Amino acid sequence: MPRLETVTVQLTGWAADPERPALGDACPIERAITLLGRRSTVLLLREAAYGTSRFDDFVRRTGLTESVTAGELRRLVTEGLLAKQPYQEPGRRQRHEYVLTEAGHALVPILLALGEWGTKHRPHNPHVEARHAGCGAPITVEVHCTTGHRVPEDEVAIVVAEDRVA
Amino acid sequence: MPRLETVTVQLTGWAADPERPALGDACPIERAITLLGRRSTVLLLREAAYGTSRFDDFVRRTGLTESVTAGELRRLVTEGLLAKQPYQEPGRRQRHEYVLTEAGHALVPILLALGEWGTKHRPHNPHVEARHAGCGAPITVEVHCTTGHRVPEDEVAIVVAEDRVA
Repeated sequence: MPRLETVTVQLTGWAADPERPALGDACPIERAITLLGRRSTVLLLREAAYGTSRFDDFVRRTGLTESVTAGELRRLVTEGLLAKQPYQEPGRRQRHEYVLTEAGHALVPILLALGEWGTKHRPHNPHVEARHAGCGAPITVEVHCTTGHRVPEDEVAIVVAEDRVA
Repeated sequence: MPRLETVTVQLTGWAADPERPALGDACPIERAITLLGRRSTVLLLREAAYGTSRFDDFVRRTGLTESVTAGELRRLVTEGLLAKQPYQEPGRRQRHEYVLTEAGHALVPILLALGEWGTKHRPHNPHVEARHAGCGAPITVEVHCTTGHRVPEDEVAIVVAEDRVA
């Protein structure tokens, strides 16, 4: 087997220090995964992106227990990823449904990136996959920079910054 | 507060059936998150993408315990995301290091999408973030289709397919 390369992404500043400690909350990947790093969370967010909004539908369409579903939905509302809003069917009492907030919708590229990886690297039949409704081609998640360049892995630079918090 | 929209992504076939059961292994997002859905897994993969390859460095740079690190590294090798290869420093006994495989490198867009979300929706100072080494602009993960179209969330179609397994 050929020797695999170890260094890919470019590190600068203290991120590049061989003796550096854990990044902890300084790392946005770590902040995101601390919130999302449970299978149950991701399954519920997937269903919310698919338009599921009612408790019983979340339970049936994820296969999670009612108890886990209730706890996770509550947490996702507290974290601002889902909003809880009232609805009422004629002749029935008012109930609540759960809808993605703006921060929740912003998670959709992560879900699609997971789906693209699963489709390629953990194939299974039959399967569902994401396509472009307009042309039918499979979805692919691409790494760009905000200037518009396509960014390959060896041009990703991890930098320390202090200017993003309002 | 304005009423939030529930339906975003387009569902077709049995994925659109209101009574449908859990997608389970038919869903590639579910297959991916079953493998990756632990905070410890993502932190170790982040470090591997940053070029960390040795056990003691993984422990210090993630803040995970030695026991969790050892267990997760073993699992990631078994799952084919990391490869274990020997190295030897002069005058010392042979040891092993851990390097991303091709399937492991393919996870980098997921890590960058998590980082982009964390930077925008869970701001923190000081912080590290990903930039394009060439021009310095922040990284953004974009949803396209393989034909080249940029795909907004309401043009994502979830379809049932049977033709992707070799």
